Amino acid sequence: MKTLLTFATALLLMSTAPAADAPYRHVVFFKFKDSASAEQVQAIEKDFIALAKKVDTVKAFEWGTNVSPEGLNDGFTHCFLVTFADKAGLEVYLPHPAHQEFVGKLKPILDKACVLDYTAK
Amino acid sequence: MKTLLTFATALLLMSTAPAADAPYRHVVFFKFKDSASAEQVQAIEKDFIALAKKVDTVKAFEWGTNVSPEGLNDGFTHCFLVTFADKAGLEVYLPHPAHQEFVGKLKPILDKACVLDYTAK
Repeated sequence: MKTLLTFATALLLMSTAPAADAPYRHVVFFKFKDSASAEQVQAIEKDFIALAKKVDTVKAFEWGTNVSPEGLNDGFTHCFLVTFADKAGLEVYLPHPAHQEFVGKLKPILDKACVLDYTAK
Repeated sequence: MKTLLTFATALLLMSTAPAADAPYRHVVFFKFKDSASAEQVQAIEKDFIALAKKVDTVKAFEWGTNVSPEGLNDGFTHCFLVTFADKAGLEVYLPHPAHQEFVGKLKPILDKACVLDYTAK
């Protein structure tokens, strides 16, 4: 019982603070071309969600559209946060055929991307 | 016992996947001026960590310096990920005196920032 409580407490801490074994975050901002239709943008959103499930080194995935009131988004409208256990996980993901196929679909409608990776402190 | 196991399993899921009650993420990229010294940049890193502890609507905070091999970071070197329960949490943070003081210290050495907020899906 005590062990389980300690385990639950440890998990609770993990859910709110970076773990000692810190994850590798891959942060991706997209701005689509003005010519991109809503349907094309939605297809990319779906494709990115599907991509994250196809590469088993992806440990967590979430995304959303910009709702910041600050106006400092430089035209970017989408953020995708892809988590790997470590940089080796990213190195499997980048050349993965599913990622390459996704990039091929994305490029014709993408205006610009900004990507930062960091090991969470 | 069964209840505790279920609780632990729920927490485990929370730590890897977006919760049903999705958090509000505030993603901040910084590029410092070439004239900023390493000491000045380190002081801002420490000040941001301290800021996150001063505002009680900040539910999680992590940061790191860019290690992406893709070269798509457009000069940005730092990413800070600030999590609130909801947009109301951000609305307490932005005008908070501790945030205003931090921005005052940051501006003289900041080249540019890019900020996106999203509710995690």
